[in-house]
Amino acid sequence: MERTVSPLYAAIDLGSNSFHMWIVREVAGSVQTLAKIKRKVRLAAGLNSQNELSEEAMQRGWDCLSLFAERLQDIPDDNIRIVGTAALRTAVNSDTFLSKAKDILGHSIEIIPGEEEARIIYQGVAHTSGGCGKRLVVDIGGASTEVIIGEGFDASALTSLKIGCVTWLERYFKDRYLTAENFDAAINAAKHAIEPIVESYHELGWDTCVGASGTVQALQEIMLAQGMDEIITLQKLKRMQRQAMQYERLEDLDIEGLTLERALVFPSGLSILIAIFESLNIQSMTLAGGALREGMVYEMMSQMRHHDVRERTLLSLQSRFQLDSQHADAVAHTALSLLGSCEQAWQLEPQAKYLLNASATLHEIGTSIEFKKSGDHAAYLINNIDLPGFTRAQKHLIAELLRRYREQLTSLPEQHALSAQSAARILRLLRLAVILCHRRDHNHQPPFTLTVDDNTLTLTLPARWLSTNPLTKAELQQEAVRQTDMGWPLVIDESE
Amino acid sequence: MERTVSPLYAAIDLGSNSFHMWIVREVAGSVQTLAKIKRKVRLAAGLNSQNELSEEAMQRGWDCLSLFAERLQDIPDDNIRIVGTAALRTAVNSDTFLSKAKDILGHSIEIIPGEEEARIIYQGVAHTSGGCGKRLVVDIGGASTEVIIGEGFDASALTSLKIGCVTWLERYFKDRYLTAENFDAAINAAKHAIEPIVESYHELGWDTCVGASGTVQALQEIMLAQGMDEIITLQKLKRMQRQAMQYERLEDLDIEGLTLERALVFPSGLSILIAIFESLNIQSMTLAGGALREGMVYEMMSQMRHHDVRERTLLSLQSRFQLDSQHADAVAHTALSLLGSCEQAWQLEPQAKYLLNASATLHEIGTSIEFKKSGDHAAYLINNIDLPGFTRAQKHLIAELLRRYREQLTSLPEQHALSAQSAARILRLLRLAVILCHRRDHNHQPPFTLTVDDNTLTLTLPARWLSTNPLTKAELQQEAVRQTDMGWPLVIDESE
Repeated sequence: MERTVSPLYAAIDLGSNSFHMWIVREVAGSVQTLAKIKRKVRLAAGLNSQNELSEEAMQRGWDCLSLFAERLQDIPDDNIRIVGTAALRTAVNSDTFLSKAKDILGHSIEIIPGEEEARIIYQGVAHTSGGCGKRLVVDIGGASTEVIIGEGFDASALTSLKIGCVTWLERYFKDRYLTAENFDAAINAAKHAIEPIVESYHELGWDTCVGASGTVQALQEIMLAQGMDEIITLQKLKRMQRQAMQYERLEDLDIEGLTLERALVFPSGLSILIAIFESLNIQSMTLAGGALREGMVYEMMSQMRHHDVRERTLLSLQSRFQLDSQHADAVAHTALSLLGSCEQAWQLEPQAKYLLNASATLHEIGTSIEFKKSGDHAAYLINNIDLPGFTRAQKHLIAELLRRYREQLTSLPEQHALSAQSAARILRLLRLAVILCHRRDHNHQPPFTLTVDDNTLTLTLPARWLSTNPLTKAELQQEAVRQTDMGWPLVIDESE
Repeated sequence: MERTVSPLYAAIDLGSNSFHMWIVREVAGSVQTLAKIKRKVRLAAGLNSQNELSEEAMQRGWDCLSLFAERLQDIPDDNIRIVGTAALRTAVNSDTFLSKAKDILGHSIEIIPGEEEARIIYQGVAHTSGGCGKRLVVDIGGASTEVIIGEGFDASALTSLKIGCVTWLERYFKDRYLTAENFDAAINAAKHAIEPIVESYHELGWDTCVGASGTVQALQEIMLAQGMDEIITLQKLKRMQRQAMQYERLEDLDIEGLTLERALVFPSGLSILIAIFESLNIQSMTLAGGALREGMVYEMMSQMRHHDVRERTLLSLQSRFQLDSQHADAVAHTALSLLGSCEQAWQLEPQAKYLLNASATLHEIGTSIEFKKSGDHAAYLINNIDLPGFTRAQKHLIAELLRRYREQLTSLPEQHALSAQSAARILRLLRLAVILCHRRDHNHQPPFTLTVDDNTLTLTLPARWLSTNPLTKAELQQEAVRQTDMGWPLVIDESE
């Protein structure tokens, strides 16, 4: 039995609103959180009109750093990265803060330029988000907003704008009223700040857009709480603005799914996001899997770079849960080959293929907990584990597919990753693949063919094959009954 | 990242009532179930008064074996064991059955003598049950009952009695009436069968007693459903008998916690168990973690032999979930050292110590799923994973301790592994140990001393230690508030 001791890493981010310390280790290709400490230091609030940090604000920062310092003592120097962002970039007396901070931490702090912040954020996104093609990344911070275009691990445009949800709150919602005038002023000012990059960003272009900040996360939580899907569009943002404007003052805000902690900077963050959507003409945005801190950590763990984040995630989970990867690959191969037979007739969404592949690759994950209810255990694990490269809706669908990968068949709940029909169809194929591979011997796959007529599947095996394989026959026949009972006709046949 | 491919093992048990096939693999010192196939063949019911197996019963057996045969093809010969028990021992025409069965399976079947069955059952128990000292093992089957005394992995007395819950049903509850007369006849006949071994078993003696059969499992489920603890006593067995006798006929039986499948052989199994308790004067019995099939599998996996089943389980879980075992050991060491300071004052039950050790050893298991709710994840895992060596009540307590190992403190639910007071006390020590080790550097443990005055704990640290370790100080102070709020006073102090 292996004894695991893997080195610790620490990423500390001295933000304009909060200081964060994140302590992690690498486990079989995954980042595992061991501690998260956050203090609302509100450094930006301590800047006066001459951009001087007040003594009180610096003291709040130093107090927080002495807490962090205790934990840092036991982490190798090379595994620690500490950065300061917008508030410290702006403060004219940041040297005073830094010299004492360095004494407290025993480590130096990098105040990183906006472009470097954008670069690291992009790395955080690239290491934790799926999809291919060119990506537009937007990260709305307390005092700055980063806008990046990149592909794979390379960013081609890095911008840090001096707009943020804390500064915009103080500037445009100072009276705390949720009026059309305040929103208009906030949106217009943000548009003005974005203006200089609009042309060059349009020229570069992008295929997908992800957002990586508390504002985007809060939006997604509200949308999920209100039963919407996870794709952020300008239309939904405008709906949020109308919802917010039904309340007179910020203190009254009571939007379903919005936490108290997030409410204060929600209107300002929303205004900035609306401005960015309109200025850059963004069609849709999803939530990124990580940003600045993830970028800091993944850059220190150079071995984590993988050309396909989703594939890295699947390999890591196979290893972490000691799945029989040969068998998993055989089931995935069979499932995709079944899908191949249906592709023309069914015309599934493009993501159906990789969701089926992911489900097949992980289908035995629940068995690592216990055999009998392995479907439910799989769903529990997938719903709760971080799955870099997959969105929340996709995780949810994979979990619900795995809950039903064998035995009893029940209808899928509402989900937003695929159409209900497509989801049911890949579930049928997953279950068939699991049965076809049940002997776990990838050299003795049954030589099946699958034909499809609308919703009816016919699985044909060679003459006499079923009678010489009575267990597979029994399982396939039972499955035909189960699928047919669900209104999904499945016929098991032998060729002449 | 490691790709896992571990060989498969199959254990097939041709019992008097059902045939079972169990397919497993070894994962980091644990047995993982990959398939379980069971068919109610009812071989014993096909024996006539001349002990000849009917053609129909044999056909039912062969049909079942053709299903098993398909799966066996891909498993190495050395990893397959197939045994037949009482019904096949008894059948005078078993050769007819066996020769065709061998053709179907491509493997030979051992009809094992009763003593060999007892020996394997003992191995199944020894590999899956905790505790030390001499053990009395009782396994009530369909047509035979094994009674064994052993210590560690060595059995010193092996007996197979010709009494079983199916044969006793047919003999003493043939009219299906739950009368005192039927129960008395069944109990007395069983006592008569046990009589020859009573003296020698009393001479050998034992320290603990475990039961390893469906009857004992059914009893435990009834007891849990009715809110009792998991220890089986003669008093509880008699209570069950009285509950059963409130119904006129077997078909009417409706005892809370008794499944339909088990109900038919419940009165006969209960009668045999009462006879064994009375004849051998057994004080208490718990459920074993395994029996015949487990014995067959563990014997094939010779590497699984470990002098301490609970320790093997903890090591295996540390490895399977890639826990930081150095850190886990440090927390366990600290927790036990805290316990040492309280031992005299608190006088906890002896098992408190290994339950605290197990909880500390596994305290980070939930982190392998996700950090934020790691306590809840730990509870989910422990409640659902097989934990050889720990009883169901002990698993439940470990799960509830781990649900509360950090952050918010809530009171423990009802549990049956320790007194409520002891459970709360080891929870306090576990939480303190986790905080004291939070730096994860076992060379820099705070040099604490713990004193105890009834329910009040005082943790003392050297002068000025707290002010130079502000994070630990903050965490300890918060913990003092949390424990004190629960009515468990905790004082954090510095020596002069």
